[in-house]
Amino acid sequence: MNLRVVLMEPMYEGNVGSVARSMKNFGFHDLILVNPCKIEDFGSAMASHARDVLQMSRNFSSLPEALQGANLVVGTTGKRLVEEQHHLRLHLRVPCLTPFMLAKKLQGKEGTVALVLGREDCGLNSQELAICDMVVSIPTSSEYPVMNLSHAAAILFYELSRVENGRVEMASPESLELLGYRSRSLLEEVSYPEHKMEFAVLMLRRILGRAELTEREARTLLGLIKRIRWRIGSYLKEEYLASCEE
Amino acid sequence: MNLRVVLMEPMYEGNVGSVARSMKNFGFHDLILVNPCKIEDFGSAMASHARDVLQMSRNFSSLPEALQGANLVVGTTGKRLVEEQHHLRLHLRVPCLTPFMLAKKLQGKEGTVALVLGREDCGLNSQELAICDMVVSIPTSSEYPVMNLSHAAAILFYELSRVENGRVEMASPESLELLGYRSRSLLEEVSYPEHKMEFAVLMLRRILGRAELTEREARTLLGLIKRIRWRIGSYLKEEYLASCEE
Repeated sequence: MNLRVVLMEPMYEGNVGSVARSMKNFGFHDLILVNPCKIEDFGSAMASHARDVLQMSRNFSSLPEALQGANLVVGTTGKRLVEEQHHLRLHLRVPCLTPFMLAKKLQGKEGTVALVLGREDCGLNSQELAICDMVVSIPTSSEYPVMNLSHAAAILFYELSRVENGRVEMASPESLELLGYRSRSLLEEVSYPEHKMEFAVLMLRRILGRAELTEREARTLLGLIKRIRWRIGSYLKEEYLASCEE
Repeated sequence: MNLRVVLMEPMYEGNVGSVARSMKNFGFHDLILVNPCKIEDFGSAMASHARDVLQMSRNFSSLPEALQGANLVVGTTGKRLVEEQHHLRLHLRVPCLTPFMLAKKLQGKEGTVALVLGREDCGLNSQELAICDMVVSIPTSSEYPVMNLSHAAAILFYELSRVENGRVEMASPESLELLGYRSRSLLEEVSYPEHKMEFAVLMLRRILGRAELTEREARTLLGLIKRIRWRIGSYLKEEYLASCEE
């Protein structure tokens, strides 16, 4: 498993440096910053002997760009946020895991996991969380649940460093995207109501996301959808045969 | 289980404040500082909403004072330190646990556990580690194993916050001290070589320490030693009977 750490609009350079240090402490090196604050001397000092991680970090201006190529996207949040904003407002079931449960889930998997950490003051917003396949939350005291960004990161790195590599290849982003695309086509072909389409496609993506599909499963599902579309006649036989050779 | 956090000669007020914040995040409040740096505005700012933990912290000038009344003393260190300094130089077997193993060991126990965190630059020295019943070490990358103090603390608090209270009462410090004292008397009475005495007593203390004695076991051992001393005639029957009524 490769871990890609994505900091969403971090506000304090000290935290960015601290996160870089902590990453290197646990053997992680791939850092992406989305619209970060300026990182100058203090951030570099906090990175200490992990200045290389900071120097090698990449900057992007949007979260989707930062997530390109990731097999699985894990968001982070305070628990209450998830319950209120996510479950009630978006009506989308995103599993909220503890760091321990997340590490267990990833055991033996192969691929790139993007771990997205939000802003120091308000974390990730619900639109950003909606992009994530899973959400992880550190169980904290209700008296003072708000952790410092780099401390939360350190705990997540600590748990994830225990994950052993395996040979179970996670579904590629391309296969997942294709699955979404082909599912939409299928729904259109069966005249699924237009105004429910967006929600249904998003729901399917969420289900497939939290199921942590393997590449093999993704391909099987794609084959299955093809067969259905072919049977209902909307897929020309020629197209089907051509696509089998892809 | 009550957790007492002991910072040994912390050098940077920012770290002390960060540790206080992280303690409160995980429901811990008892902070002791041994010869700390000055804690002023920056330390207080880093504590954020845990300024109360900082204000309630107690200062001592030596580690033994800070450990008064603790049932179990857990030191922290980088793994290599333990192996080299401890095993080879002091010839004392102190179990070196991961945070996860420590939390597992403490599950269901009742009493005060002192968690001792060392200086930012050189940690705890071998004399300080020798006072500890157990040593915990966070598994880090060999490329850059040195963690920031408050990050290491956060990971330990995270693991220890999962420990559930139980009814297994850990041996009191008084019983443990009495055990050491009575063991020494017994060894003297059997003419144990003077030059080996210190080592033997320390070794016994270490064995009892890492066995995590319950109060009941400590009392049973005390009774057993009394019986032996009485049998070998060095203990007057009157004294024995008197002490039974204690």
